[in-house]
Amino acid sequence: MQSTFRFDDFVVVLVSTRNPLNLGAAARAMQNFGFPHLSAVNPWEGAWMGARSAVGADEILHSAREFSSLAEAVADCTLVVGVTGLEYRYPVQPILTLAQAAPQLREHAATKGRVALLFGSEKSGLANEELDLCHLLVTIPTRPEQESMNLGQAVAVCLYEIARDTMPLSTNTAPRPATGAELTLIEELLLPIMDASKPIPSRHLAITRQRLQQLLRRLHLSQKDAQALLGILRHIAHRLGLHPDS
Amino acid sequence: MQSTFRFDDFVVVLVSTRNPLNLGAAARAMQNFGFPHLSAVNPWEGAWMGARSAVGADEILHSAREFSSLAEAVADCTLVVGVTGLEYRYPVQPILTLAQAAPQLREHAATKGRVALLFGSEKSGLANEELDLCHLLVTIPTRPEQESMNLGQAVAVCLYEIARDTMPLSTNTAPRPATGAELTLIEELLLPIMDASKPIPSRHLAITRQRLQQLLRRLHLSQKDAQALLGILRHIAHRLGLHPDS
Repeated sequence: MQSTFRFDDFVVVLVSTRNPLNLGAAARAMQNFGFPHLSAVNPWEGAWMGARSAVGADEILHSAREFSSLAEAVADCTLVVGVTGLEYRYPVQPILTLAQAAPQLREHAATKGRVALLFGSEKSGLANEELDLCHLLVTIPTRPEQESMNLGQAVAVCLYEIARDTMPLSTNTAPRPATGAELTLIEELLLPIMDASKPIPSRHLAITRQRLQQLLRRLHLSQKDAQALLGILRHIAHRLGLHPDS
Repeated sequence: MQSTFRFDDFVVVLVSTRNPLNLGAAARAMQNFGFPHLSAVNPWEGAWMGARSAVGADEILHSAREFSSLAEAVADCTLVVGVTGLEYRYPVQPILTLAQAAPQLREHAATKGRVALLFGSEKSGLANEELDLCHLLVTIPTRPEQESMNLGQAVAVCLYEIARDTMPLSTNTAPRPATGAELTLIEELLLPIMDASKPIPSRHLAITRQRLQQLLRRLHLSQKDAQALLGILRHIAHRLGLHPDS
């Protein structure tokens, strides 16, 4: 079950990365979402040095492993997943969207062994020889007009999706709503204020009250906002000499 | 319903962005996921110029709008959503995780009006005066140890999530599996090859056949892979003088 899924059971493998900013961006996303293991296969020399010596280079970059072949980098993995565009028209492996694949990846990591997530070079993605070592291909659905994602953004989106359903939901979704009694208090303050500001003919009193009641309910006031409104209305009533609290 | 949801009904609003690379990265993610409208509020002068003059600066950057105040930038929006970290301990608005919020945002865009997605500056996020103009706060759940996301990555993750459930699923999820007849063909070729390579005692024949049948079913061969294996086995059988096809 997903309860035994651990971020430790994934390794992000960057193949032939050129730009040090992308190595750093991948490491940042890994830190954001809690994936500790980064491996790099044949990164351009400058890219690797640049990322590691960068200000803010962190524990993930410093503990990252470097390999000269993809086969070595995935030697301890039991599922190798290539993240690719849709340009591979005739894949020999299954190709899933990221959202389709994520539950399988978590399940595999939880019960079967380490999962490698492969990202190819900025220029050309994963090469055919690299795809040949994949059990599964995963694609982030993008528009055909602009299919290719920035490497750091692709890593962030993948890790977000894998961690997505394990994240706690926010419980601060909505404040406590006002009670009927609080809405009635507002109505009882506001009607005399309206009447004091511009007298309500007695024949209009019932319909005016009705419309005010409907308006107050359409607003879906929170308890806190009802209290704030009551405070404002008490000041206006006092200023108008209505002394509602007396 | 979500069927009427249009990417055109969203606007990405970058507030006080400093780094031209982040403006470019946001525009790239917008192109990837199909969101056309970008607005910038008080971007650092250099940032804006840098991004627009960059090689590859695209239609989104060129058609982006610039505003000197957030109120102007969201004047035509009916839902203003601030994307923030969890550092705001006492928000006065509801705060939802991105995954919780996405259906509401799509629903609002589809039925009620334009939705603004606000992203604050790289250094300090959205300021309190900016949060005050939001109807709703959205947070991407990250680890408390490294909560703050790179701006371009945060934009990519948000747009991915909003587009996520509108994306077509891959239908190329698994190749057609081998039939029982194909597995039997493999078995009938392989048993004589095994026997020719190292004779199977007749008392072991039944259990050997049984184990081979079980192995072949555990492999979950595709039809294509069964054909490939049959081809290999036919060559071996021929080389061993077994002439299986004759």
